[in-house]
Amino acid sequence: MKEVLVSIVMGSDSDLPVMKAAAEILAQFDIAYEIDVVSAHRTPEKLFDFSSNAHKRGVKVIIAGAGGAAHLPGMVAAISPLPVIGVPIKSSNSIDGWDSVLSILQMPGGVPVATVALNGAKNAGILAAQIVAAGDAAVLDKIIAYKNELKEQVKVKAERVRNL
Amino acid sequence: MKEVLVSIVMGSDSDLPVMKAAAEILAQFDIAYEIDVVSAHRTPEKLFDFSSNAHKRGVKVIIAGAGGAAHLPGMVAAISPLPVIGVPIKSSNSIDGWDSVLSILQMPGGVPVATVALNGAKNAGILAAQIVAAGDAAVLDKIIAYKNELKEQVKVKAERVRNL
Amino acid sequence: MKEVLVSIVMGSDSDLPVMKAAAEILAQFDIAYEIDVVSAHRTPEKLFDFSSNAHKRGVKVIIAGAGGAAHLPGMVAAISPLPVIGVPIKSSNSIDGWDSVLSILQMPGGVPVATVALNGAKNAGILAAQIVAAGDAAVLDKIIAYKNELKEQVKVKAERVRNL
Amino acid sequence: MKEVLVSIVMGSDSDLPVMKAAAEILAQFDIAYEIDVVSAHRTPEKLFDFSSNAHKRGVKVIIAGAGGAAHLPGMVAAISPLPVIGVPIKSSNSIDGWDSVLSILQMPGGVPVATVALNGAKNAGILAAQIVAAGDAAVLDKIIAYKNELKEQVKVKAERVRNL
Amino acid sequence: MKEVLVSIVMGSDSDLPVMKAAAEILAQFDIAYEIDVVSAHRTPEKLFDFSSNAHKRGVKVIIAGAGGAAHLPGMVAAISPLPVIGVPIKSSNSIDGWDSVLSILQMPGGVPVATVALNGAKNAGILAAQIVAAGDAAVLDKIIAYKNELKEQVKVKAERVRNL
Amino acid sequence: MKEVLVSIVMGSDSDLPVMKAAAEILAQFDIAYEIDVVSAHRTPEKLFDFSSNAHKRGVKVIIAGAGGAAHLPGMVAAISPLPVIGVPIKSSNSIDGWDSVLSILQMPGGVPVATVALNGAKNAGILAAQIVAAGDAAVLDKIIAYKNELKEQVKVKAERVRNL
Amino acid sequence: MKEVLVSIVMGSDSDLPVMKAAAEILAQFDIAYEIDVVSAHRTPEKLFDFSSNAHKRGVKVIIAGAGGAAHLPGMVAAISPLPVIGVPIKSSNSIDGWDSVLSILQMPGGVPVATVALNGAKNAGILAAQIVAAGDAAVLDKIIAYKNELKEQVKVKAERVRNL
Amino acid sequence: MKEVLVSIVMGSDSDLPVMKAAAEILAQFDIAYEIDVVSAHRTPEKLFDFSSNAHKRGVKVIIAGAGGAAHLPGMVAAISPLPVIGVPIKSSNSIDGWDSVLSILQMPGGVPVATVALNGAKNAGILAAQIVAAGDAAVLDKIIAYKNELKEQVKVKAERVRNL
Repeated sequence: MKEVLVSIVMGSDSDLPVMKAAAEILAQFDIAYEIDVVSAHRTPEKLFDFSSNAHKRGVKVIIAGAGGAAHLPGMVAAISPLPVIGVPIKSSNSIDGWDSVLSILQMPGGVPVATVALNGAKNAGILAAQIVAAGDAAVLDKIIAYKNELKEQVKVKAERVRNL
Repeated sequence: MKEVLVSIVMGSDSDLPVMKAAAEILAQFDIAYEIDVVSAHRTPEKLFDFSSNAHKRGVKVIIAGAGGAAHLPGMVAAISPLPVIGVPIKSSNSIDGWDSVLSILQMPGGVPVATVALNGAKNAGILAAQIVAAGDAAVLDKIIAYKNELKEQVKVKAERVRNL
Repeated sequence: MKEVLVSIVMGSDSDLPVMKAAAEILAQFDIAYEIDVVSAHRTPEKLFDFSSNAHKRGVKVIIAGAGGAAHLPGMVAAISPLPVIGVPIKSSNSIDGWDSVLSILQMPGGVPVATVALNGAKNAGILAAQIVAAGDAAVLDKIIAYKNELKEQVKVKAERVRNL
Repeated sequence: MKEVLVSIVMGSDSDLPVMKAAAEILAQFDIAYEIDVVSAHRTPEKLFDFSSNAHKRGVKVIIAGAGGAAHLPGMVAAISPLPVIGVPIKSSNSIDGWDSVLSILQMPGGVPVATVALNGAKNAGILAAQIVAAGDAAVLDKIIAYKNELKEQVKVKAERVRNL
Repeated sequence: MKEVLVSIVMGSDSDLPVMKAAAEILAQFDIAYEIDVVSAHRTPEKLFDFSSNAHKRGVKVIIAGAGGAAHLPGMVAAISPLPVIGVPIKSSNSIDGWDSVLSILQMPGGVPVATVALNGAKNAGILAAQIVAAGDAAVLDKIIAYKNELKEQVKVKAERVRNL
Repeated sequence: MKEVLVSIVMGSDSDLPVMKAAAEILAQFDIAYEIDVVSAHRTPEKLFDFSSNAHKRGVKVIIAGAGGAAHLPGMVAAISPLPVIGVPIKSSNSIDGWDSVLSILQMPGGVPVATVALNGAKNAGILAAQIVAAGDAAVLDKIIAYKNELKEQVKVKAERVRNL
Repeated sequence: MKEVLVSIVMGSDSDLPVMKAAAEILAQFDIAYEIDVVSAHRTPEKLFDFSSNAHKRGVKVIIAGAGGAAHLPGMVAAISPLPVIGVPIKSSNSIDGWDSVLSILQMPGGVPVATVALNGAKNAGILAAQIVAAGDAAVLDKIIAYKNELKEQVKVKAERVRNL
Repeated sequence: MKEVLVSIVMGSDSDLPVMKAAAEILAQFDIAYEIDVVSAHRTPEKLFDFSSNAHKRGVKVIIAGAGGAAHLPGMVAAISPLPVIGVPIKSSNSIDGWDSVLSILQMPGGVPVATVALNGAKNAGILAAQIVAAGDAAVLDKIIAYKNELKEQVKVKAERVRNL
């Protein structure tokens, strides 16, 4: 079994439909990950334990997704020395997603969260792979290959649009 | 010495010019308070200790002020069973205060924060007094008196405007 | 019959589907409440009577929900000495809920409203219970138990997510 | 002495620097007005008395200015049968004026407030004159003359710009 | 046939589902109105003719509704000496209604538009009636009666909510 | 075959349902166009080639549509000397369209993008025709005719509304 | 004397400090322009005359700048068949510029305004030159030269930053 | 001389006062960096060259700062396989910073930018160090030490506040 390099956590199991895109892209890059629910507001002790220990278990990056007054990414970043990627989620009763975007993005000096787009869990997975690649040249090659694939996909679609 | 009933905490000492208005109004109502800096992002262990123990020390209400991605009020509310009043602060590099307002207000179901207006520390102090009054009729009388005073002040100012 | 400690009012009967969550959580905490429609804009005399007298009837906290240019919570707070919890409601023709959030939150110095999240009536109920607990240690124990329950629920859900 | 046709009220004497523009334009149109401070939040009884009686005293239009969670215009409109013109004021600690704009504009069906631009007290005065003109042809002529003057002023300024 | 006192215009026939509420309330107050499509952007000459002549035909108030970059109310107000009530409409491709609200509300000094809430055509009709009432005491009595009716309706609904 | 004067590009084939309105209006004006997918983020080399060469192929105007962090219009404008019309598109996961509007509109000094309304591809087509008309009087006549048609359409619809 | 190809108009002479940047860049490109104040709200007849006749006088492009509820660009575009470039201006009492941006940008189908950034008069001038270039290859060459100059300027500044 | 691991680029030399905070924190962590101006809009070829080659030169992370319609971070991320950290900058004529935040944050699927807070260059530097630490345990230790320092600083400040 491969060592877990990326830990994906989310504030509620209702975030899973968005967050699983991070897991899928990591699987595609063949990077081992774990996935869990850690609620900053309902399980603060678990938040503390998880964030204090992840780097000791060999985890290299943490992806944290949450909606509304989204404190999970920032609190994980407060406790863990690892790079934390925050995924703002547009939950029900959100004010159009502004609340989770601003709660995750606007961190004070000293405690960064690498924020991606609203519901951008796929990009969080890619970013995690890019960070893993900082210490692993083989992963960097996979990312270069992935980007070339994106190009090829656009070519096919462009062909279709030109022929309309 | 009177028992501390209200605990005022803030995320940074730079929040003091705003937050001291909460202390002043509590002093005016003769309600004992304490004041401290507890940073959710820089001192997460202190956040944990403070929030876990405040109610055991006899504190009845917590006022928490913070700016930007303001996680302090919500994290205190996650850990403490006491009512938590959140004061959004318009710090430098804030996006017009929207970040702290939404980070404090939009808490998930189960973990309320009683949010007041941007920089509204004075109102946080009054609200804390009103909460103390729920168990102390003498404080309720002081609040009624305070409201009457507000009226009198407007009367004097209205007189001046009418005579312009 | 238990004495009513919390009064839940709303600006329109169309707010009931949101506001009933406040009643349900208070029932769960076994705190007696009353529920009524008081429109600041259509029944201003009733607003006045209700707000002037609630504290005389033994009510300890008022929860007021309204949408659009939501004046009910602020006007109740203007007249009553009790702590007032405001619930912004996203009604039809609302501008994404911003109108009710800002109309309730941004109260002037001297007249606080304890604002909760958009449609956050459940949290208003919990906050009311926390305020009642300021004068009743038994309620505080119930809140501590409630918070432990929240943790247990997350544990079960987290287990499910980890096993996906 | 001429009968007062327009009543100008404001939530705080700090609104006077903005609101006096309404008085000045009414003076220019030779329409009698009164000016006073009526705080919805600090003097609710005065709000009630003023709004219930203005139309009985011969007042034809009410101009109400307020900032933040601006409830004065809407509450006057709730109680008085007269047309109410609302002036949103950008006060200190306002969230860029959005709070007062939305608190005044987004009134529920049945209770209109004629809202003008942020700090638009001059336009409130002109609008009041136009409403008075609905029952007084001489005032309508003054408004037509005023509009012609506006044109003349632009002509002079345009001349200057063309000659740069 | 009664003389037309209120003219209702809209920028597009697609605004009719919103704007007809203004006509309905005027009919209820027995105030004669006319209704037409006048597009500031597609029929500028008609805009000019309509706005220059309405007051000469005995019209007392103009209600103008438009969506998006809503120029109709402001342009009518630029040309006509009559009070103009603007109704911001949330059309398709609107940015949540903010575009029409700001395009109508934020008029420059000298040219007011009495703006009502987003899609607030009913309130525009009531406001028009209140303006007509400035010169007609019988209409004022109808408005007082209408307000009493609003109260009665709330009473019935409140009864239902209390009995839940 | 007529020489291509207008080039329509979009960031993704999912933008086609919006962007085809630009093609349709150009066809109606009988102006030759081409249509293609050019992704700033997935095919940066194609972006570079396309933008560097369009003016050499006789293209007079470029229409570029994109959603989210919409970089296509601005990057084309950075590289090409031609006038570039930007169409902000409200894609899924957009924050209400604000992201694409601001990403396209707020270009720095030296590199303009002629921005049209959210999803305003039809207007982009008309604007392109107006630009072509700057060097071709026959096209100007078609635009004048088009505007007269708009008027006629409103007349028919206005008739229907008046007769309701 | 060269024929005027670009007409620069603004809603108020207070817009001149912003709008003169359009004139300066046109002078730099040696394109003849005229500059005037045309107020949609204060001089609607002049707006009408100007917009109806500009294309008959040989003008190829109109640049229109305005603030607040900025109707000038859209109304010129409604009447003139020429391409109209709109410059949103952040005037005093503007709500952070949102009002003028949205009033100019969000034009309905059929009547485009080519909107540039807030206070982006310089870019409006460049865009006007690009439109003139559609019918004049010599101007296109000047634009290519201008873009090369921009590059050179950045080179010098980059050198300075690298050497810090 | 140490190998450059982090490349800091900015869209304009006017961004330097903000961006130098990234350099300072990297110097503090003893991580070699380079700093340059690369304008997406004025030097697109340099953007292309820089982004295509950085990873070949051993760079591990790119920090890109820009204001307004900020395309630099996203375009670098489009071309380079490295993790790109975006710093939104509140430039003059920015619409309160919203434009640069949204232009950088809302990237499409496949091309992430790790966005930090408005003007958050210091946090961008820390995040870059955390990414370098993914492949270098010594840097991770420095980050742990840095976080402990933050705690100590708060302790001193908290002491001062408590003693007021």
